[in-house]
Amino acid sequence: MPAYATNMRLKFPIVALVLEIITIILFAVFVDYDDGKGHGHGHQEHSNETHNEKPPMALYPMFQDVHVMIFIGFGFLMTFLKRYGFSSVGVNLLLAAFGLQWGLLMQGIWHLDHGKIKMDILKMINADFSTATVLISFGAVLGKTSPVQLLIMTILEITIFSINEHLVATVFKANDVGASMIIHAFGAYFGLAVARVLYRPALRNGHENDGSVYHSDLFAMIGTVFLWMFWPSFNSAIAEPGLTQLTAVINTYLSLAACVLSAYAISSLVEHKGKLDMVHIQNATLAGGVAVGTCADMSIGPFGAMLIGFVAGIISTLGFKFLSPILASNLGIQDTCGVHNLHGMPGILGGLAGIVAVGASVKGKAEGFIMKLPFWGQPPDQNCFDDSIYWEVPEEEEENEESLAHADHSKNKAEV
Amino acid sequence: MPAYATNMRLKFPIVALVLEIITIILFAVFVDYDDGKGHGHGHQEHSNETHNEKPPMALYPMFQDVHVMIFIGFGFLMTFLKRYGFSSVGVNLLLAAFGLQWGLLMQGIWHLDHGKIKMDILKMINADFSTATVLISFGAVLGKTSPVQLLIMTILEITIFSINEHLVATVFKANDVGASMIIHAFGAYFGLAVARVLYRPALRNGHENDGSVYHSDLFAMIGTVFLWMFWPSFNSAIAEPGLTQLTAVINTYLSLAACVLSAYAISSLVEHKGKLDMVHIQNATLAGGVAVGTCADMSIGPFGAMLIGFVAGIISTLGFKFLSPILASNLGIQDTCGVHNLHGMPGILGGLAGIVAVGASVKGKAEGFIMKLPFWGQPPDQNCFDDSIYWEVPEEEEENEESLAHADHSKNKAEV
Amino acid sequence: MPAYATNMRLKFPIVALVLEIITIILFAVFVDYDDGKGHGHGHQEHSNETHNEKPPMALYPMFQDVHVMIFIGFGFLMTFLKRYGFSSVGVNLLLAAFGLQWGLLMQGIWHLDHGKIKMDILKMINADFSTATVLISFGAVLGKTSPVQLLIMTILEITIFSINEHLVATVFKANDVGASMIIHAFGAYFGLAVARVLYRPALRNGHENDGSVYHSDLFAMIGTVFLWMFWPSFNSAIAEPGLTQLTAVINTYLSLAACVLSAYAISSLVEHKGKLDMVHIQNATLAGGVAVGTCADMSIGPFGAMLIGFVAGIISTLGFKFLSPILASNLGIQDTCGVHNLHGMPGILGGLAGIVAVGASVKGKAEGFIMKLPFWGQPPDQNCFDDSIYWEVPEEEEENEESLAHADHSKNKAEV
Repeated sequence: MPAYATNMRLKFPIVALVLEIITIILFAVFVDYDDGKGHGHGHQEHSNETHNEKPPMALYPMFQDVHVMIFIGFGFLMTFLKRYGFSSVGVNLLLAAFGLQWGLLMQGIWHLDHGKIKMDILKMINADFSTATVLISFGAVLGKTSPVQLLIMTILEITIFSINEHLVATVFKANDVGASMIIHAFGAYFGLAVARVLYRPALRNGHENDGSVYHSDLFAMIGTVFLWMFWPSFNSAIAEPGLTQLTAVINTYLSLAACVLSAYAISSLVEHKGKLDMVHIQNATLAGGVAVGTCADMSIGPFGAMLIGFVAGIISTLGFKFLSPILASNLGIQDTCGVHNLHGMPGILGGLAGIVAVGASVKGKAEGFIMKLPFWGQPPDQNCFDDSIYWEVPEEEEENEESLAHADHSKNKAEV
Repeated sequence: MPAYATNMRLKFPIVALVLEIITIILFAVFVDYDDGKGHGHGHQEHSNETHNEKPPMALYPMFQDVHVMIFIGFGFLMTFLKRYGFSSVGVNLLLAAFGLQWGLLMQGIWHLDHGKIKMDILKMINADFSTATVLISFGAVLGKTSPVQLLIMTILEITIFSINEHLVATVFKANDVGASMIIHAFGAYFGLAVARVLYRPALRNGHENDGSVYHSDLFAMIGTVFLWMFWPSFNSAIAEPGLTQLTAVINTYLSLAACVLSAYAISSLVEHKGKLDMVHIQNATLAGGVAVGTCADMSIGPFGAMLIGFVAGIISTLGFKFLSPILASNLGIQDTCGVHNLHGMPGILGGLAGIVAVGASVKGKAEGFIMKLPFWGQPPDQNCFDDSIYWEVPEEEEENEESLAHADHSKNKAEV
Repeated sequence: MPAYATNMRLKFPIVALVLEIITIILFAVFVDYDDGKGHGHGHQEHSNETHNEKPPMALYPMFQDVHVMIFIGFGFLMTFLKRYGFSSVGVNLLLAAFGLQWGLLMQGIWHLDHGKIKMDILKMINADFSTATVLISFGAVLGKTSPVQLLIMTILEITIFSINEHLVATVFKANDVGASMIIHAFGAYFGLAVARVLYRPALRNGHENDGSVYHSDLFAMIGTVFLWMFWPSFNSAIAEPGLTQLTAVINTYLSLAACVLSAYAISSLVEHKGKLDMVHIQNATLAGGVAVGTCADMSIGPFGAMLIGFVAGIISTLGFKFLSPILASNLGIQDTCGVHNLHGMPGILGGLAGIVAVGASVKGKAEGFIMKLPFWGQPPDQNCFDDSIYWEVPEEEEENEESLAHADHSKNKAEV
C-alpha cells in the first residue's frame, strides 16, 4: 500500500462492508438474547447464585450514561481542532459502532453459555468499555490516520484488551472496577505506541490545522462536560449493586470535583498572565475520574477520593504544559489530544492508588460489609479469636487495616 | 391570505395564544392526574389485570430518553442549514411543546377513565411519539413554511395520527412497537405530501441558503448522536417490561451499529474520491433505528436485527444520493432534510420486516416465552401431544413456525 | 485590592488551592459514606421510619438529570455572548464543582449523624440545588467579574442559602419542593444585589461584546433545551416517591409546555415585524419551570399547572422587553442574562401560586388522595364534624400555618 494513497473509494467501503458481514455471520453463530437465567451484575462467576432475580433492564440507565460518554463525550471532546470536527465526532461514531460489536464477541467468548454469548445490558456496558480503549488511542493519533487504519486498530486493540481484561479479572482476580489501568492506561499507551510508529518529522514544528478556533473549543466543552457528569456512572456501572455502587459514585463525583479546582489553579499558575488554557480545562478536569477508577468502589473515604482527584488534576495539567512538548520533540510521540496526560499518567496514578487502597484494606474494608459476603473468605470457626491476622504485618498500610478490622469487630458486636 | 405576508406580528401571537387557551380549557375539562389505579405498560387493555403494582415513576428514565430525542435529537439534527438553525431548534421546540399537549388530548380520548384522561408517564411517552410524526414532516418542509402553517400542520397531523394509531393498535391489533410504519413512514409521507403541495419552482436550481457550513454540520451531529444513542429507548419504551423490553433494546442497538458501517461504506463508495458526506452520516446512520422499529420486540435474532440495519443503511444512503434529486426534479417534492430516506423508506422496510417476522412466528416466537403467558392461549391439556398444530399449515412461513415450535417443544422437555 | 488588577497568576491559584485544601480537610473530619441506615427521600426527619428499605441508588437517574441541568444547562445557557463562551461554560464548571462540595458541608451540618455527614444521592441532589443559586446569580453579573470574586460569592451565597433553606424547611415547615422561592428568587435577587454593587457607569450605553453571534445563540440553545427537558426532574427529585413525585413531574412538564406557547407569542407580539427574539426563546420558555416549582407536588390540576406556565411565559418575556432596560438605566442593575426575568419574577409568581395552592387545599387537595395517606393526620373519630379547624384562625396565612401545624401535631401523636 503506497504511503499516502488517500483516495478511499474502494479501500474503505470494502473493508467496512467485509468487516460488518463477517461480524453479522459471527453474531448469527455465537450470539443470542439473554434468556433471563443467570442474570448477574459485576463478576459473572458469582452472580448466578446471588442475583438471579435482577430485572433485565435494571442497568439500562447506567448503560445509557456510559453510552453518552462514548458517543457524545469522546466524540465531541476531540472536536477542538479547527478543521477536524467531522472526523472527530464522525469517525468516533464509526469506530465505536464497530468496536462495540467486536467487543461483544471478544469479551463474550470467555463466558459462553451453551455455546452462545447471551446478550444483556451488562455485556453492552462492557462492550462500550472496550470501545473506550480504542477511542483513547484514537485521541493520540487524531488527524494523522485514515479510517481504514483506524478500523484495523479497533480490531487489534479490542482483541488484545479483551484477553488482557480476562487475565486481569479472572486469572489474576485483580480489582479494577473503574478500569484506571486496563482501560485508561492501556488505551493511552497503546495509542502512544501507535503514534510513535506513525511519527511524522514534518510535523515537528507544528501544523497550521493543529489548533483550535473559538467555536471548536466550545464544541469540545460539550464532550468534556458530558464526560465529567457521567463519569460516576462509568466507574460504578459494573460495581456490586447497593452500597458498593453508591461508594463508587460518591468517590468519583468527589474526585472529579476536587480535580476541577486543582486543574484550574495549575492552569492559571503555569500560563501567561495567569490565564486559563482551554486544553487544560477540557482534559485535566477529567483526570480525577480516571485516577479514582481502580479504587472507586473501595472505602477510601470521601476525602481520600478528593485527594486522588486533587493530585490527578495537578499532574495532568503539568503534563500538558511540560511533558507533552518533551514527548513530541525528544521521543517522537506526537500525542494530538494529550491522552498521556488525561488517561496515561492518571491511569497509572489510579493503579497505584488502587494498590495502596487494597493494601490498606486487605480482606477488611472500612464498612466491613464486604467481609460478610460468603465467598470472600470469612475465617473458619477454628481460626476465630486468633490475633495473628492483626499482628503479623509490619507495614504502615497494615496498621491501617488493623484499625479498620477493629472497628468492624466492635460493629459486629454492637449488632449482636 | 396573501401568499407571502411574512409579517407575523398579529397572526402568530393570536394563533398561538388562542390554541394554548383552548388547550388549557380542554385540559381543565378532560385531563386529570393518574390516581394509581390501573397502572399499565404497553397495551392499556391488558395492563389493568397484570401490572397494577407498577411504580408510577418506573418509566420515567425511558421517557426522558425519548424526550431528549424529540427536543435535542430532532431539534439539532435540522440545524445543518447554514442560516436556519434558530428555526430548526426553536420551531422544533414550539411544535413539540404544543404537539405533546395536543397529542395527550387526541390519544387520551380513546381511553377515557370516568370521563377523564388520567395522565401518567406512559401517556407522556406516547405524546412524545405523536410529536415525532410532526417533527419528521417538519424536516421535509424545513425552510419553506411559517410557524403559523406549522402549528396548523401539528394539529392536523397529530389528530390523524391518533385516529390512525388507534385503528392500528386497537381495531386491527397490529404490532408496531417501534412504530416504523405508524410514526416514521406516516410522518415522512405526510411531510412529502405537504412538500409537494408547497412546491416552489423557483427553488428548482437550489438556493444559496440550502446548504451547510462547517459548524452547522457539527451542531447537526449533536442531534444525530443523541438520536442514535437513545433510539433503543424509543423502540422499547412501550414494550412489555422484562425480557421483551430487553429484546427491543438489543435489536435496536445492534441494528444501529450495523447501519453505521453500511452507511459509511456506501457514502464513501458513491461520493467523489471516496469521501464521506456529512448528510449521509447525519441521517443514514439512523435508518437502522427506524427499520428495526416494528419488529424490535420480536425474537428476530441479534443477527437478524443487524441485517435489517445493514440493509437500511445502504438503502438510506443510496436514497440521499440518487432518489432525492429525482423526487425534486421529476415529482416536485423538495424534501429539505431527506426524510424520505431516513424515515420513509426505512419505515416501509421496517413494516415489511415486521410482516416477515410476524409471519415467521405466528403464535410462537423463537424464545417461546410469549407462549407461556397465561392469556396467550396455551393449549388446554386434552390437546397436548396433538400433531395437528404442526402439520396443518402449508405455507413457507408456517414451516418456519413449525421448526420453532419443535425447538420450543424439546426445550420444554429439557426443562422437565 | 486594586480595582482592575486582572492578572490572576497568583491570586486565583492560591485562592482555589487553599479553598480546596480546606474543603478536603473538612471532608476528612465531617463526611462519611452513607451506611445504609436511615435512607430517606424528601424530608429527612420523617424518612427514617418509612423508607428504610429504599435502595441506595434509587434516586441516581434523577440526580443525573439535575446534574445535566447544572453543568450543561446553566453552562451553555450563558454561552450566548459572542466572546464569553469559555467563561460561561468553564467558570460555570468551576463554580459548580466547588459549590457542590461547599453545599454538601453547609447543608450537611444541620443533619449530622454521629457527628458525621453521611453522603447519599439525596444529599448530592441538594448540593446541586445549592449550586443552582450561585449559577443564577452568576448570570446576573456575567462578564463583569473575576473567577476569584465568583469563588468568594460561591462561599457566601451557599452558606446563606443553606441557613435560609434550613429555616424554611425545618423551622417554618414551609413547602417549596421545586424551590421557586428559596432557589430561584433567592439566587436572582442575590445576583441582582451583587450586580447593583458592581454597577459600571461606562457600560450604560452597552458594550460591543454584550451581544450574541449566530452560532453563540445556537450553543445557548443546547443549555435551554436541556434545562427545559429535565426541569420535571428538578422539581420532583426530592418529592415524596410515588404519585406525589408523578404529580410534580406532570405539573412541571405541562407548565413548561404552556409556557413555550405564551413566550413565543409574546416575543412575536413585542418584536419588530413580529419576529421571534432568541433571548426570549432561550430564557422565557423556562419560566414555567421556575413558576410551578413551589406547588409542583400539589394537586393544582393539570390545567392549573398550564395556567401558571402560561402566565410565567408572558411575564418573563415582557420583563426582558420592558423591565430589564428600566432596571439598567434607572436602578443601575445591569443584569447580563436577565435572571430577574427568568428566575426572579417567575420565582415570586411561584411563591404566590404556592400560597394560593396551599390556601385552596388546606389539608385537602383537589384530588383528595393525599388525605388518604395514613401518616397525614386524618382526624381521629372524636374530632370529626368539628368546625374548629376551619374557623379558629383569623389571618389568611395563619390559617394556613395553623392547619399545617395541627396536621403535624396529630401526625406526631399518631406515630406515638
